[in-house]
Amino acid sequence: MKKYKRNQRIGALMKIFAERPNHLFSYNYFCKIFNAAKSTISEDVAIVKELVSELSFGRIETISGASGGAMFIPILSIEEEKEILSQLCSLFSQKNRILPGGFIYMTDIFNNPNIVMNIAKIISSEFSNEKIDYIVTVETKGIPVSLMTAQKLNVPLAVIRRNNKVMEGSTVSINYVSGSSNNIQTMSLSRRSLKDKAKVLIVDDFMKGGGTCKGMADMMKEFNADVVGTAVVIETKEPEKKLVDDYTSLLILNNIDAKEGIIEIEANSKLLK
Amino acid sequence: MKKYKRNQRIGALMKIFAERPNHLFSYNYFCKIFNAAKSTISEDVAIVKELVSELSFGRIETISGASGGAMFIPILSIEEEKEILSQLCSLFSQKNRILPGGFIYMTDIFNNPNIVMNIAKIISSEFSNEKIDYIVTVETKGIPVSLMTAQKLNVPLAVIRRNNKVMEGSTVSINYVSGSSNNIQTMSLSRRSLKDKAKVLIVDDFMKGGGTCKGMADMMKEFNADVVGTAVVIETKEPEKKLVDDYTSLLILNNIDAKEGIIEIEANSKLLK
Repeated sequence: MKKYKRNQRIGALMKIFAERPNHLFSYNYFCKIFNAAKSTISEDVAIVKELVSELSFGRIETISGASGGAMFIPILSIEEEKEILSQLCSLFSQKNRILPGGFIYMTDIFNNPNIVMNIAKIISSEFSNEKIDYIVTVETKGIPVSLMTAQKLNVPLAVIRRNNKVMEGSTVSINYVSGSSNNIQTMSLSRRSLKDKAKVLIVDDFMKGGGTCKGMADMMKEFNADVVGTAVVIETKEPEKKLVDDYTSLLILNNIDAKEGIIEIEANSKLLK
Repeated sequence: MKKYKRNQRIGALMKIFAERPNHLFSYNYFCKIFNAAKSTISEDVAIVKELVSELSFGRIETISGASGGAMFIPILSIEEEKEILSQLCSLFSQKNRILPGGFIYMTDIFNNPNIVMNIAKIISSEFSNEKIDYIVTVETKGIPVSLMTAQKLNVPLAVIRRNNKVMEGSTVSINYVSGSSNNIQTMSLSRRSLKDKAKVLIVDDFMKGGGTCKGMADMMKEFNADVVGTAVVIETKEPEKKLVDDYTSLLILNNIDAKEGIIEIEANSKLLK
């Protein structure tokens, strides 16, 4: 069987960790891949641990003992968060994004895997100390951000549908009031989506009145689930009072001046401390 | 400024490559991160190149010269593809997935980031030699697989909507006939979603008659786009004649015996050669 050099094992370990953050890999798993003794792997992991810390990638957590293993927990530095948020502000405030009716075209941003991954890195960093079982979102535009956040936190995603679908099996449906438009809408979620007493992080792309997030929180009550946090990519400054109290936003949309073609958006300063 | 050991640079390089496959990183970018000379980085990349090949992670492509750089192209081995496909078959054929009406509950699978990433690894491997500008899908269930495929191939995703949305700006809408149910449905895509003459890969979760994929292909004509391939996760064996000719499926659903609770699903043998 092939043997690998330390250099090669370090590189391979880092790839495996990076592709599946927050997952506990057993030392035995690595022993098999590298055809190496546990003591060797354990030294390799120590080197990876140091490099992850020195390069500010986050941290490696190790668990010792027979069933021991290691896990990579990516955490962004404040500098990286600042850089990502400032890139996002530039992107979202591009003049040509203003649509008739004073809306902003954001679809391309929320469907760009690299941008979405950067957003997910921030959200998952912010919630890296929480015990989370599921990410919950509502279709459609928030799905990519939510999926990438779920990937970073190594948990499944549950997608609430706007309509009842036959392929979802038995579902729970609720009516909710859209905070900004006062319309009554329906959302439904498959009964099989969440286990009982799950801890969930609600993720969405945009919050104005907060009605959708409030609806999702209400839905969670039907599933006996505990909402440990709510994260939205953009919140509007107005209305200041949202229908949910406890949420984290990455960006704040202060104003859209459709006539002048100016979108005023800024990083949420609460994040950067 | 900090200096890093070779071990550490190799690990960090592999992390950076793994998190953004198919992206060309310049040597200068690495020089800055590691505070190292280009000759050093170039040696590091050579080591990474060797390890990626020895461990069958795919390949590293390097471009020399002043604007030179390196790119990681992940490619699965046949063994890994086999293993993933066999895991998928076990998952999809679980007895308790059968819903009233003979449907199969698949939502949890298509929303699990790790499973979806494995599916995306296969699709992106299969199309790693094609020049692709966009992944195109239609909401909702195919979005996670499509996003992960887009991430692996380092291209944006365009999501066709079932309804016209005000936030999408001006859209192109088409009517199409669902191949299995003969219903006429509408799909629409924002004009801004694709650049002219784009090369697109169509991705979807499920194909029965092929009407949806045919609809997406028709939509692509409206955008002057060139469909370089169509990938679906599952196709049904019947009807054998689909509305699209040229497509790749990962799994074939042969039969659902709702009474006996048996789902017969197999890996598409065409993939594994």
